[in-house]
Amino acid sequence: MASVNNSNSGSERKSTRDPSIDNRARFNLSPVPSIEDDEDNNLQNHTQTVNPNLDEEESGEEFDLIADTQGASTTAVTMCDNNNNDHNSQFDYKNDNEQVTNVTYVIRKHYENFETIDWLKDLMRNRIRHRNLRSQQQQSWKKRFTFWFDTWSGWICVLLVGVSAGLVAGFVDIGAKWLSHWRTGVCTSAFWLNREQCCWASRDVEYDDVHNEICKYWRTWSDIFGIDALSVSGWFFRYFMFILWSVIYATFIVVLVVGSAPYASGSGIPEIKTILSGFIMYGYLGKWTFLIKSIGMIFATSAGLIVGKEGPFVHISCCCGNLFSKLFPKFGNNEARKREILSAAAATGVSVAFGAPIGGILFSLEEISYYFPYKTLWRTFFCCMVGALVVRTINPYGNGHEIQFPVEYNVPWATFEVIPFIGLGALGGLWGTLFIKTNISWLKYKKTHTIGKYPKAEVIILTLVTAIVCYPNTYLRLTMPELIRRLVGQCHVEDHMDLCDYEREKPIGTATAKLYAAVAGPGLHRALWQLLWALIVQITLVIFTIGTKIPSGLIIPSISIGAIAGRLIGIITEQVAFQNQHLAILRHECGVSNEHCVTPGLYAVVGACAFLGGVSRMTVSLVVIMSEVTGGLSYIVPLMITALTAKWVGDAFGEGIYEEYVNLSGYPYLKNRESFPFTLKAGEAIRPNRSGQNLPLACIIQDGMTIAQIDSVIRNHPHSVYPVIISEDFPCIVGKLQRRDLLAVLKSRKMQQTLTQTKPLLNRKVSLVSMSNLLNKSGQPSSLGMRRASIALQASKTLQLHKLVDRAPIIVTDQTPVEAVVDMFRKLGCRQIFVTKNGRLQGILTRKDIIRLMHEATVSRKFEH
Amino acid sequence: MASVNNSNSGSERKSTRDPSIDNRARFNLSPVPSIEDDEDNNLQNHTQTVNPNLDEEESGEEFDLIADTQGASTTAVTMCDNNNNDHNSQFDYKNDNEQVTNVTYVIRKHYENFETIDWLKDLMRNRIRHRNLRSQQQQSWKKRFTFWFDTWSGWICVLLVGVSAGLVAGFVDIGAKWLSHWRTGVCTSAFWLNREQCCWASRDVEYDDVHNEICKYWRTWSDIFGIDALSVSGWFFRYFMFILWSVIYATFIVVLVVGSAPYASGSGIPEIKTILSGFIMYGYLGKWTFLIKSIGMIFATSAGLIVGKEGPFVHISCCCGNLFSKLFPKFGNNEARKREILSAAAATGVSVAFGAPIGGILFSLEEISYYFPYKTLWRTFFCCMVGALVVRTINPYGNGHEIQFPVEYNVPWATFEVIPFIGLGALGGLWGTLFIKTNISWLKYKKTHTIGKYPKAEVIILTLVTAIVCYPNTYLRLTMPELIRRLVGQCHVEDHMDLCDYEREKPIGTATAKLYAAVAGPGLHRALWQLLWALIVQITLVIFTIGTKIPSGLIIPSISIGAIAGRLIGIITEQVAFQNQHLAILRHECGVSNEHCVTPGLYAVVGACAFLGGVSRMTVSLVVIMSEVTGGLSYIVPLMITALTAKWVGDAFGEGIYEEYVNLSGYPYLKNRESFPFTLKAGEAIRPNRSGQNLPLACIIQDGMTIAQIDSVIRNHPHSVYPVIISEDFPCIVGKLQRRDLLAVLKSRKMQQTLTQTKPLLNRKVSLVSMSNLLNKSGQPSSLGMRRASIALQASKTLQLHKLVDRAPIIVTDQTPVEAVVDMFRKLGCRQIFVTKNGRLQGILTRKDIIRLMHEATVSRKFEH
Repeated sequence: MASVNNSNSGSERKSTRDPSIDNRARFNLSPVPSIEDDEDNNLQNHTQTVNPNLDEEESGEEFDLIADTQGASTTAVTMCDNNNNDHNSQFDYKNDNEQVTNVTYVIRKHYENFETIDWLKDLMRNRIRHRNLRSQQQQSWKKRFTFWFDTWSGWICVLLVGVSAGLVAGFVDIGAKWLSHWRTGVCTSAFWLNREQCCWASRDVEYDDVHNEICKYWRTWSDIFGIDALSVSGWFFRYFMFILWSVIYATFIVVLVVGSAPYASGSGIPEIKTILSGFIMYGYLGKWTFLIKSIGMIFATSAGLIVGKEGPFVHISCCCGNLFSKLFPKFGNNEARKREILSAAAATGVSVAFGAPIGGILFSLEEISYYFPYKTLWRTFFCCMVGALVVRTINPYGNGHEIQFPVEYNVPWATFEVIPFIGLGALGGLWGTLFIKTNISWLKYKKTHTIGKYPKAEVIILTLVTAIVCYPNTYLRLTMPELIRRLVGQCHVEDHMDLCDYEREKPIGTATAKLYAAVAGPGLHRALWQLLWALIVQITLVIFTIGTKIPSGLIIPSISIGAIAGRLIGIITEQVAFQNQHLAILRHECGVSNEHCVTPGLYAVVGACAFLGGVSRMTVSLVVIMSEVTGGLSYIVPLMITALTAKWVGDAFGEGIYEEYVNLSGYPYLKNRESFPFTLKAGEAIRPNRSGQNLPLACIIQDGMTIAQIDSVIRNHPHSVYPVIISEDFPCIVGKLQRRDLLAVLKSRKMQQTLTQTKPLLNRKVSLVSMSNLLNKSGQPSSLGMRRASIALQASKTLQLHKLVDRAPIIVTDQTPVEAVVDMFRKLGCRQIFVTKNGRLQGILTRKDIIRLMHEATVSRKFEH
Repeated sequence: MASVNNSNSGSERKSTRDPSIDNRARFNLSPVPSIEDDEDNNLQNHTQTVNPNLDEEESGEEFDLIADTQGASTTAVTMCDNNNNDHNSQFDYKNDNEQVTNVTYVIRKHYENFETIDWLKDLMRNRIRHRNLRSQQQQSWKKRFTFWFDTWSGWICVLLVGVSAGLVAGFVDIGAKWLSHWRTGVCTSAFWLNREQCCWASRDVEYDDVHNEICKYWRTWSDIFGIDALSVSGWFFRYFMFILWSVIYATFIVVLVVGSAPYASGSGIPEIKTILSGFIMYGYLGKWTFLIKSIGMIFATSAGLIVGKEGPFVHISCCCGNLFSKLFPKFGNNEARKREILSAAAATGVSVAFGAPIGGILFSLEEISYYFPYKTLWRTFFCCMVGALVVRTINPYGNGHEIQFPVEYNVPWATFEVIPFIGLGALGGLWGTLFIKTNISWLKYKKTHTIGKYPKAEVIILTLVTAIVCYPNTYLRLTMPELIRRLVGQCHVEDHMDLCDYEREKPIGTATAKLYAAVAGPGLHRALWQLLWALIVQITLVIFTIGTKIPSGLIIPSISIGAIAGRLIGIITEQVAFQNQHLAILRHECGVSNEHCVTPGLYAVVGACAFLGGVSRMTVSLVVIMSEVTGGLSYIVPLMITALTAKWVGDAFGEGIYEEYVNLSGYPYLKNRESFPFTLKAGEAIRPNRSGQNLPLACIIQDGMTIAQIDSVIRNHPHSVYPVIISEDFPCIVGKLQRRDLLAVLKSRKMQQTLTQTKPLLNRKVSLVSMSNLLNKSGQPSSLGMRRASIALQASKTLQLHKLVDRAPIIVTDQTPVEAVVDMFRKLGCRQIFVTKNGRLQGILTRKDIIRLMHEATVSRKFEH
C-alpha cells in the first residue's frame, strides 16, 4: 500500500481496505461529476443494495467538504497501487509497473484564486449532489433529515444573511450617527445618545437655521470646556474639536484598513459584480474584511468625508452571505451556487442600507448580478424582506417607518415641470461623466506617482481639508443623510429654517393654513449661496475621496450633490414661476388655487435621482430605490424621465462608474450588455489566439500516449485545459482535461519515479477513455458487469485517467458567428468552447479570448465609423 | 431565361441581367444568414468598390420585407438556369441538364403559423441586416438617414406603442365607467357623463351607504320613467333596467367576439407568454383582435360580469406593439426582435391599466417575458413611462394622481399584525388553488359536454345570473374598481357609510379629531354580512366567468375578492384588538396613544395582494404593482410577507393560473423556471425519440446525393430539419437543412421535370458544401479568386444547394447531461440540438422533445419519491 501526498498542507487519507472495493469507492471521488454521474446511472440501485457501506463515498462532495472546511490545501492526489500486497512499506515501488494505478482525489478546492468558474460544471455537481442525497433519504431518518436540511438550506441561509445584514445595518447606522454628533458635542444626560435622541428627552427643544435640535441636555464642546459658546474663541474651539475628532476617526480607520484588510477599502460594488460574474477572489468576502469594513464605515462617514455607507453595505452583506454559506455544503462548496446566495445578499445590502427591499432586488438584478435564475429572485425577495424587517425593528431612523428621507408632501406635479426635470437629468448625466473621468484620471495618476505610496497620509490630509472646509458651512457641517433629509423635505408653516424663509403675505400660525407661493426672503437667499458653496465643495472633494483606502460608497454623495443641485434649481424654478404667474403655461396649472405648484423638495428628490443615475447608469432600480427612500410614489414618472435623461446623456460620454472601475482594475468581466460588433466566425477568431505562428494545438490523444509524452505536452503548452482527441489523424474531440488534474497526476508519478528510479514508468501508456468505450460497446452493461470490466481494466498496464476527462465539452462549428459564441459564454457561463470543423477540432476559445476580442472591438470601433 | 414560381400569390422577380453578376447577387438572397455572412466577410470591401450596384441585393431582408408587407405567400423559389441565352422562352428546358442551377429565394415568410422561432438565427439575421445598413451609410444621405432611422426605430416604435396603449387605456377606462353607470341611471345635464363627473357640477352632493354620489343631475331610470323612486315598484324597475342593460351589453360583445374575433376572448396573458417564448400565432395580435378586444373590455366589465380589464390590456398593448412593429422592418420582419417590442408592450399594458409603470416592467420581466435582454429593459422602461404619462394626461381616475386605489393613510403597522397578514396570505394561496382547480375542471368539462357548444348562451345566462344576484347587494352593485376603492380606503370622521359606522365615544365633528378605535356599530355589522355575501357570490361566479368567450381578466376579480376578505378580517382583527387592549402584545403597540392601531383598509390591500398572489404566483412584481396601485409605500414589508405566504401555500398545491392555462391549451412552452429532475445524458435522451425502433437518422450527405435520393429522404422522414453529414461512413455534422427549403427546391425541380419530361434531372447530383470546402482548402482566398471559383463551380453539373445549409448548428456530445441541454434550449433559444459522439452524429433533440421529456419527468416524479 502506497500513499504519496503532494499537497501543501492537506490531510492524508490512508487506504487500507480491500483493494477491489476500495478502488471502486475511490473511483467515485472524481472532481468531474459528469463522469461520476455516468456510473451513478448504472450503478446506483445496485450500490445501494450490494454495497451500502460504499454510499458515503459515492459523492466526491463530502470529501471536498472536509477540504474546504479545513480550508488550506489546494490539490492532493493519492496514487494507489492496489495489487501491491505489502500494506506496510509505504515507499516500496519495486513492482510498480506491473500494477494498475488509479488516481484518487481526496481533497481539493475547485478553483484557484483569481480564476473564473465554470457555471455549467458547478451546477452539474450540485445536481448530482442533490440527487445522491435524495436517493439516500430512504435509508435512515438521519439521511432523510440531511436531505430536508439540504433542500431548505437555501432559505435558512438567506434568512441568516437577512438577519445579520439587518443587524449590522442598524448597528452601523446608530454608531455612525452617534460618532458624527460626537464631533460637535456630547449628551450630558447619557453620553451614548446622539443629539436627536438626547433632545427627545428634553421638553423645550429649539431648532437652529438648518433645523438642528438645540436642547439643554446636548452640550457642545466649547460649553463643556467652559468657553463662552457665543464668543469667537468658542466658535474656533468647536471648529478645532470638529477637526480633531474627524482626523482621529480617519486615522484610526485608515490604519486599520491599510494594515489589516486592504480589501475593505472602496465601495466593493465593482468587485462584487466581478465575483458574481464568476471570478474567484479568496478573502474578499472574508470575516476580517467584514469586521473592518463594518467598523470602517462608521468611522469613515463620521469623519465627515464625502463618502457613503450604502455602497459598502452591499459588500458587507455579501461577506455575510459568504460566511453563512460556509455552514451549508450546498453553497459553501459550490462556487456557482454560492453566487445565488451572494446575489441575494447584495440585494439585501441595498435593502437594509436604504430600507428599500424592492429597490435592492432590482439593484441586484439590474446592476450587480450576472446569472439571476428565477429561484434566486424569490429567495432574494425573502432575504430583502427579512433584512428590512430587522432594520425596521431596530428603527435607526427613529421615525417608525422604513423610509429614510421621507417626502411628506403629495402635491401633484405640473406638466411644464417636465422641462426642469429633463434639465436636471442632463445635468446629472454631465456631472456623472465629469466625476468618472476626473476620478479615474486621479486614480491612474496616483498609481504612477509618489502620492500613491502614502495612502494613510492621503486620507488624513483629505480629512483635514474636508473638516476645515466643511465646518464653516452649516449645510456641510451636517452629515450627508441629514442634509439630504432637509433638502427633500417640504417647508411647513412652523419651520423657521433659512430654506423656508419666504416673505409670505398670509398670516402664519394656523396649522391648517396652506402654503402659498411667495417671494424668497433674505434667509432663503443666504441658504442659496451656502448651498451653492456646498455643491462646489462636495463636487470637488468627492473626486479625491472615492478610491482612497477607506470604505467609501458613492451613492449617498451622489444623492447629496444631486439633492443640493435639485433644490437650487427647484427654488429658482419656484421663484420664476411665481413671478411669471401670468404666463399661459403656468396659469393653467398653478394659477387656479395659487397653491404651491413648484415644490423645491421634489426637485431635490429628482436631482438626487438624476445625479445618482448619471454616475451609476441604473434605470429601473434607481427609480424604485428613490421612490422607496423618499416614499414618494406619486413621483414615479418624473423620476423615470430624469433617470432616462441622465442615462442617455451619460452614456453618450462613456460607461458607468462600476464598469469603469472594473476596466481600471482589469478584472476579467465579460460584459453582458453590449452587443459584439464584429463580423468574425468562430473559426477566424481562434487564429489570432495562436499569435499568428500557427502553432499546432496542444492535444491529448485518448489512447496510447505515454506519460513522458503527456509531460512534454504540459511542459510546452501551459494552457489551463487540454482537449482530448481520438487520434492525431482524426482530431475529433472526446472531452477535455484540466491542466491542474494532469499536473497533479504527473507530479505524483514523478515523485514515485524519483523514489524508485525505474525508467519504464515514463513510457507507461495512458488510457483516457477505454472504460467508457467498453461501456458503450457493450450497450447497456449491468452494473456488476461494468464493475468486473473495470477491475479487468485495472489489471492491464495502462494508467487510467478517464475519470479526469470531462466528456461534455461545449462545441461549436467554425462557421458559428462569434456573436453566437459570445452569447454562449454569457448565458451558459462556460470557460472554454471548442471550435470544430466537420467534426475535427480546430481550436479553443476561452472566456479571456472573448474579453480580449470585445476589448479590441471597442477600441477599433472608430475605424468602422 | 426561365422562371418558375410555385408560390400561392407571390410576386415574381425577373432576371434579365448579366448572368454571372446576377448569380452573385441572387446568391445573397439566402434565407440562411450565416452563410451569406460568410461571403460578406470576404467580399464586403470588394463589393463596395467593384460592384456597388449589387449592394441593394446583398441583404435578403429587403425582399422578405416585400413578402411580409404583402403578407400572403409562404415560400417562393425561382430556379434560374443562367447559361441559357434564350431569355425570352420561359419554358424552354431542352438544355437543362447541361446547366448550373441555382436556388434563389425571392419571397418567404420565415415561419409558418404555430411554429417556434429560432432565436439564434433571427438575431443573427438582424445583426447582418444592421451591418449591411451601416456599411452602406457612407454612400448617400438617404442611406445614412435609413441607417439612423433603423437605429432609432426601436425607440420610435415603443414611443408609438406607449402613446397608443395609453390612449386606449384612457378611452376604455372612461367608456367602461360611463356604461356601467348607465345601467343605474343617466346624467340629465349631459348624458355623456358618468355619475361621478355628473355630480361634480352639482353643489349639494350627498352620499349613500356605500359612498355613491347622489345629486340632482343624476337621475335613476325609475326617476326618468316617472316611477316613485322609493316605492317597491321603483326598486324593481331599477332592478329590471340594471339586468336589461347588463344583458344587452353582454349579448353585444359575445356576438362580436364569437362571430369576428375568437382570439379576443380571455385575458390573453397565457398566449402572450407563449408568443413571447417564441411561438408563432398569426392573427392573435392582429388589428381585428385589437379592435374587438378594446370594445369588448368596455362592454364586458360594464355588463357587471366578474371580469377585469387589466389582464386584457396586456393583450391589447401587445396588439399595438405588433401593429406598430410592422412599420419598422427591423422588428416587423424579425420575429425575435419583434418580441422585444412585445415585451415592452406587455409591460406597458400593466403600466397603463394600473398606472403602475414599475410594476408593469417587473410583471413583464417576471411573469410574461422569456428573453429579456438589458436593452429591452431600458426600452420597456421608456415605453411604460410614456404610457403612464399619457394616462396621467387623460386622467381617467379623476384624482390628479396616477394612483387607482389610493390609501391616504400612513399609520405604521404593528408587529403583531404579521400574524393576520400571514393568515391572509395562506387564505389567498388556498383560494388561488381552489379557483385554479375548479376553473380548469369546469373548462375541461365544457370542452366535452354540450354546454361548450353554446358559448353565446353561456355568456348571456351568466350575465343574467350575475345581474340578478348582484343588484340587491349594494357592494356588488358597484363596479369592482369602485368596490375596491371603498374597501382599501380609511374611514374619515365625516364618512357616513356603513363600513365606517363605529360607536365612537369622542364627539364627531372637528376635522382634526383623530379616529380612535371603537366598538362596531349596527351599520358595520350590516356591512359585514353584506360583504360576506359579496365574497361568496364573487368567489362562485368568477369560476364560471373566467374562460368564457368574452375578454376577461382575472386580476381585478382577484383583487376584489381579496380586498373583501381582507377588509372582513381587518374589521375582525380591529374589534378583537380593541376588546383585548389589556393584552401585553397589544398594549405595547396600540395602547400608548389609543390611536388606530389596526387599519381595516390596510387589510384590504394586503388581502388583495394575497389573493392575486395566490392565483398568479407573482412575487416582486405583485408587491410593486400593489404598492403603486395603492400608493402605500410604507406597507411594502406586509405586502412582501403576504405575497410570499400566498406563493408558498399556492405552490404546494400546483402551478399558477397562467401556467395551468398554457398546459390546458397545450402550447409548446418550455418552462424556464423548473429544474429538470432527470439524470439522463443527451445520448440517452435521443433514444426514445425514435420510439424504440432504432430507425436510422434521416441525413443528407454533403456531396453526391441525387435529387431522387433527397426526395426519398424527405418523403420517408417528415422532419422539419435534416442534418447534413460528410458521408455515411463518417457521419460528422456539417450543417443543417430546413425541410421547407428542400421541399421548395424539389417542387420547382419537379415542376420543371413535368414540363420537360427529361429523366436525367432526377439523377443530377447535389452538392451542398463544395464551395465552402473550396474556400477553406485554399486558405484565405481573395474575394476575386472566390468569385472566380464560384463561377467555375457553377459551370459544373451539380445542383448547388450550399446556400441553404446552415453551417452553424448547435452541437453537444452524447455525454452532456440533459440538464445542460435544457439550459441551452432555454437560454440560447435554439430549435434543435445535434448530439454527437466522438464527432459522429448520434441524433437530434428538438425543443418539443425537451418539452415532452420535461412533461414525462413531472408525471413520473411521484415514482422517485
